[in-house]
Amino acid sequence: MTDWLPSLIVKTPAEGYDLAVKLARVAIKVTQPDAEVRDRLRSDYAENASALVAVSQVIATHFATVSAANNFWRGEA
Amino acid sequence: MTDWLPSLIVKTPAEGYDLAVKLARVAIKVTQPDAEVRDRLRSDYAENASALVAVSQVIATHFATVSAANNFWRGEA
Amino acid sequence: MTDWLPSLIVKTPAEGYDLAVKLARVAIKVTQPDAEVRDRLRSDYAENASALVAVSQVIATHFATVSAANNFWRGEA
Amino acid sequence: MTDWLPSLIVKTPAEGYDLAVKLARVAIKVTQPDAEVRDRLRSDYAENASALVAVSQVIATHFATVSAANNFWRGEA
Amino acid sequence: MTDWLPSLIVKTPAEGYDLAVKLARVAIKVTQPDAEVRDRLRSDYAENASALVAVSQVIATHFATVSAANNFWRGEA
Amino acid sequence: MTDWLPSLIVKTPAEGYDLAVKLARVAIKVTQPDAEVRDRLRSDYAENASALVAVSQVIATHFATVSAANNFWRGEA
Repeated sequence: MTDWLPSLIVKTPAEGYDLAVKLARVAIKVTQPDAEVRDRLRSDYAENASALVAVSQVIATHFATVSAANNFWRGEA
Repeated sequence: MTDWLPSLIVKTPAEGYDLAVKLARVAIKVTQPDAEVRDRLRSDYAENASALVAVSQVIATHFATVSAANNFWRGEA
Repeated sequence: MTDWLPSLIVKTPAEGYDLAVKLARVAIKVTQPDAEVRDRLRSDYAENASALVAVSQVIATHFATVSAANNFWRGEA
Repeated sequence: MTDWLPSLIVKTPAEGYDLAVKLARVAIKVTQPDAEVRDRLRSDYAENASALVAVSQVIATHFATVSAANNFWRGEA
Repeated sequence: MTDWLPSLIVKTPAEGYDLAVKLARVAIKVTQPDAEVRDRLRSDYAENASALVAVSQVIATHFATVSAANNFWRGEA
Repeated sequence: MTDWLPSLIVKTPAEGYDLAVKLARVAIKVTQPDAEVRDRLRSDYAENASALVAVSQVIATHFATVSAANNFWRGEA
């Protein structure tokens, strides 16, 4: 798993958001490597309001990191 | 979903807050793409004190990012 | 809702704290626009230790943003 | 409540920690102004492992803010 | 346990992510030193959607730290 | 409790991590001063997956602060 994240630098805020989502998902894989269990749990949290919001929090934290890495794409403004 | 977020730069703190709310909402869509399930869950967390506060936390995290991106609108002071 | 937040710049740390509280409360309004439901939920989380602490966390996150915006009121020291 | 927080600047990291604890406590007061209810809830979360850890999280967030405000007391090292 | 973390500086974002995972795991060891209990708890949170997401949050927080330490590997872009 | 934290500056990342753990523990003491109650709660959260992860989150937040205070020990790389 050494090539999945070549850089934190992306062209646009939307791509940065996608990267944040990816960073959030990888953590789940690392902690629960069994794809079958993950699929079961995924349907758990995707249908549970609290867990869904908690996933959003993880994405928000990664989005802060990716945004800072890209100097907030200030040149795009 | 590549045009929904052209920039993190907005004119005022209030617009920045709106953007933070939007960033929080998109995460829910990404994790639960089924609009019908989302609507059901939305009424869950909108009527549950803990989940509602958790949503506020996600918005607060995104507002920190958007505020930093805009240098806190210091020129507006 | 475009005039409620003209600036993040305030004179003192105490005013900054008040602003953080305000920023936390607005998120609740945005997610649950029905004032009657909000009042009911408010009494829920105001009497529940965990939810009360969670509200404090949201305020803490906004206070970090407001403090950074004001360069921590270092001139006041 | 305008004089309770004249400055974020304090002399030592230990004083900064005390200030972080104070900042965490004020949020509880703001959200639950009734002292009697607060006392009851306080014994709730002080004897509940999860709530106690959640309080620590709020303190940690405020300590980050206070530490940044004081340039991490680098001159003290 | 003084040699386990010689540096926060790593060559690539992917290595930075691995380090964030390691930093998250060490906290569990410090708080629960008994390996047998940890193994039991690990299977608990690896099969529980909410706990799994909470682990992701810890990793996200450490990834922010490691990314800042490495200036976001901007030279790699 | 004024001498327990003379500085945030430590020599290595591993010492910084130890300090983060200490900062997390002090918050528990401040909120629950009764050592006997703390011991009981400690066994609670040390054997509960969710609480254990929550403790990790607090440590992660303090580690971010300590790392920033030490400029991420970049000179050590």
